[in-house]
Amino acid sequence: MSRRFIAVDWGTTNRRAYLIEDGVVARTERDAMGIAAVPAGDFVAEVAALRARFGGGPMLLAGMVGSNRGWIDAGYVPCPATLDSLAASLAGADEGVWIVPGVSTVRDGRADVMRGEEVQLLGAVTAGLAPADALLCQPGTHCKWARVAGGVLEDFATAMTGEMFALLRDHALIGAAMGAPVSAGKAFAAGVARAGEGDLLAALFGVRPASLLGLRDDADAASYVSGLLIGGDVLAQVAPGDVVHVLADAALGTLYAAAIAQIGATAIAVDSHAAFVVGVTRIWELAS
Amino acid sequence: MSRRFIAVDWGTTNRRAYLIEDGVVARTERDAMGIAAVPAGDFVAEVAALRARFGGGPMLLAGMVGSNRGWIDAGYVPCPATLDSLAASLAGADEGVWIVPGVSTVRDGRADVMRGEEVQLLGAVTAGLAPADALLCQPGTHCKWARVAGGVLEDFATAMTGEMFALLRDHALIGAAMGAPVSAGKAFAAGVARAGEGDLLAALFGVRPASLLGLRDDADAASYVSGLLIGGDVLAQVAPGDVVHVLADAALGTLYAAAIAQIGATAIAVDSHAAFVVGVTRIWELAS
Repeated sequence: MSRRFIAVDWGTTNRRAYLIEDGVVARTERDAMGIAAVPAGDFVAEVAALRARFGGGPMLLAGMVGSNRGWIDAGYVPCPATLDSLAASLAGADEGVWIVPGVSTVRDGRADVMRGEEVQLLGAVTAGLAPADALLCQPGTHCKWARVAGGVLEDFATAMTGEMFALLRDHALIGAAMGAPVSAGKAFAAGVARAGEGDLLAALFGVRPASLLGLRDDADAASYVSGLLIGGDVLAQVAPGDVVHVLADAALGTLYAAAIAQIGATAIAVDSHAAFVVGVTRIWELAS
Repeated sequence: MSRRFIAVDWGTTNRRAYLIEDGVVARTERDAMGIAAVPAGDFVAEVAALRARFGGGPMLLAGMVGSNRGWIDAGYVPCPATLDSLAASLAGADEGVWIVPGVSTVRDGRADVMRGEEVQLLGAVTAGLAPADALLCQPGTHCKWARVAGGVLEDFATAMTGEMFALLRDHALIGAAMGAPVSAGKAFAAGVARAGEGDLLAALFGVRPASLLGLRDDADAASYVSGLLIGGDVLAQVAPGDVVHVLADAALGTLYAAAIAQIGATAIAVDSHAAFVVGVTRIWELAS
């Protein structure tokens, strides 16, 4: 295969394309044409347009574009997963266009899947942005927690942390008080602390009584709820003394770092775009 | 006051009115004219119409009609609360019309409120439907757990269990699989068991991977999620060996009884309408 290819991190909401030449990003472009914005029959034309804009050549796509809601279902490789096992299972989608499979895990009766995150996770380790034995976290709508040992993705878990925050803000009775921006201040820390006591559904209900009885200002409700959810997410995965490598944008990364620090662990920020580029380039080389 | 009065259990969605003569229900009527269906300025006319239908006379209202979203704010009496403390704090709403206050609690920095449930809870104890020392549960949109000692409502907690189920079914990504009716079968029991392992946001996300990887049929998703939520609710409040008096309709009562039994405790069903009538009659007598 060519040392020049077009890589696309194609999620549900957004899409980021890279022209990669000899492992270096020659050009990148981000837009809101996630799979949710592309009608089922339009992927061939979308890919052709993207390819033309980037000067043609082979393409390697990753993310939800390879799901049953995307272009074609690229399947899953099971844990333990590596860039080699991903590269060995690329799905051919069209002439010169391949899609990276997702990763699945089944352990103790718990099933989980990821699609797109695996390239970033294993790319981070390959790039040396995280060690070969690491706990990695990708916050977001569905927050991924991945355990890598000896460079191998051994297991992972997903929490609907971001989706739950949006559900509560947009549709719950307490949502009316959740309009203020979230910050990692005292209310957020109080939420993290309360998360440690469990019983999330009671803690969430408590937002309105705390306001009615004058114990908390409504302006702090969103930060408190964010602390409750992120705190619960972190407490389920992180022990005091742990080091967590976090792949996130600045805003969400700050909140997770605060919650991780509050329970006595350490967060290290990892550049998720750099991790993706290294991961997808390595998959491309391995498949060549 | 008269031995004949009209009592109304006036909630957010529904309203049940009783004509009570010498402690006996002479007539009752239920409709969907909860406070959400009554425009703010219409309560005087609504109450007058209800009073006319029931042959006139004094009225005692309880529930959300006494909230800041209802007719007038009837305030709260703090825990420890009794029918006496409620009767001593009735709010006069109009000529011959009173509203029962709600109950508030603040303990260990946790605030909670109820409005309407207190009449049922303390009524159940007064009627002998539950003992003077009891743990009582009122499942619903917002599930109440009340601890009564020596006939006194000492403390309570509320979980947004029913609201969360509706949020997930109607607005979450996993909601698409939650259309089937909920039953207290194997999937529900699996949800209760999973609730014991904590990390609710990951357990909820797991619904879709379990379907994608063939571990659970979509037809079982709603029962599993119900088990997760109700199981978490029960586990936060009930210890093995406990006896819980449950005030619920048959469907929800069956689910809570199953979860309570699964953790090794015992559920006893209490007739919530009978409890309300005894409670509101006693408040009426005490206030006379």
